[in-house]
Amino acid sequence: MDRKQLIEAVKSQMPAKRWEHTLGVMETSVILARRYGCDPEKAYTAAILHDVCKFWPVQEQAKVIRENNLPQDLLDYDKELWHAHAGAFIAKRDYGIGDEEILDAIRYHTSGRQGMSLLEKVVCLADYIEPGRDFPGVHNIREIAEHSVEKALLYAFDGTIRFLLDKGRKVYPLTIHARNGLVDEIKLSEPVEPELQN
Amino acid sequence: MDRKQLIEAVKSQMPAKRWEHTLGVMETSVILARRYGCDPEKAYTAAILHDVCKFWPVQEQAKVIRENNLPQDLLDYDKELWHAHAGAFIAKRDYGIGDEEILDAIRYHTSGRQGMSLLEKVVCLADYIEPGRDFPGVHNIREIAEHSVEKALLYAFDGTIRFLLDKGRKVYPLTIHARNGLVDEIKLSEPVEPELQN
Repeated sequence: MDRKQLIEAVKSQMPAKRWEHTLGVMETSVILARRYGCDPEKAYTAAILHDVCKFWPVQEQAKVIRENNLPQDLLDYDKELWHAHAGAFIAKRDYGIGDEEILDAIRYHTSGRQGMSLLEKVVCLADYIEPGRDFPGVHNIREIAEHSVEKALLYAFDGTIRFLLDKGRKVYPLTIHARNGLVDEIKLSEPVEPELQN
Repeated sequence: MDRKQLIEAVKSQMPAKRWEHTLGVMETSVILARRYGCDPEKAYTAAILHDVCKFWPVQEQAKVIRENNLPQDLLDYDKELWHAHAGAFIAKRDYGIGDEEILDAIRYHTSGRQGMSLLEKVVCLADYIEPGRDFPGVHNIREIAEHSVEKALLYAFDGTIRFLLDKGRKVYPLTIHARNGLVDEIKLSEPVEPELQN
């Protein structure tokens, strides 16, 4: 399946309005990949496929998780998390994606995880800030994304966590591990203030 | 060591001003234990000891964790978490507390954990709302604690998590497991709305 066929095949899995979002993620993923130095081709492919089964009936998504040994604890958390893990499985099985880095970028684009690769960060962040997104704080995240993918993604995850707390909903533990990991990465990347050095 | 001796021994481990807080937790733990139906004697004992090594030098707390096979990942998180796990160890070793329920109430009084016992919830909540506490939202938590220990504790944990996010600090995963567990417990305890029943 060539790139054009892949795009047409994935596009057919969702309503036209939702495909616009994927187009935005494709565009933004490539921009971020070039800005931060990971493979734009891989980012583009992961972006095409990131929501491949998001608009399937949730029971179909759950079935993919149940029947293919994906993390079963997902089923105890928000349905919004399911399509990412199910999507990585489908990308491999039905669309012939064999590159584990691309599959991980699809798999963790919603929950995140500790120790995310740059490609994972890029696709996850692109999903938050593509041009069609409009939620409180998105302009801030876009601004931060001009200079730090880690800081932008931390801000984005923290917004998601606050939203879930406000709604009385559960927070998937991987998301906490993801943002804790980013806190550590950001700290390591910053110069130690002289008076705090030992 | 009788009760009076225990109190004197623990009191000697901290500044007088900090002992006032422990007195508050002792009083509130007993009130909550009676209100919600767990053993007030155990709650009282756990409360006496909950901060037993909180005012030790942090390196001493870290040493207890390192040398006694306590969860090592604590050392990657806020120092404020250390005294609880170290305290449970010290309560057993130095004060002869053998009751695992009491030790767990000491151990998890700061982080919480998934599937907290009622005694653990009571001591943890008492630590948040004892009369000496004065932080934004404490009045709300006290009000909620009049009728639901789970809802009050969820509100308290969520406040802690928001505080940590605001400060750019890491959130100990057990705290997320604790509040997710409370979300589930609260949901199970509430009547299902007729239109949502299957």
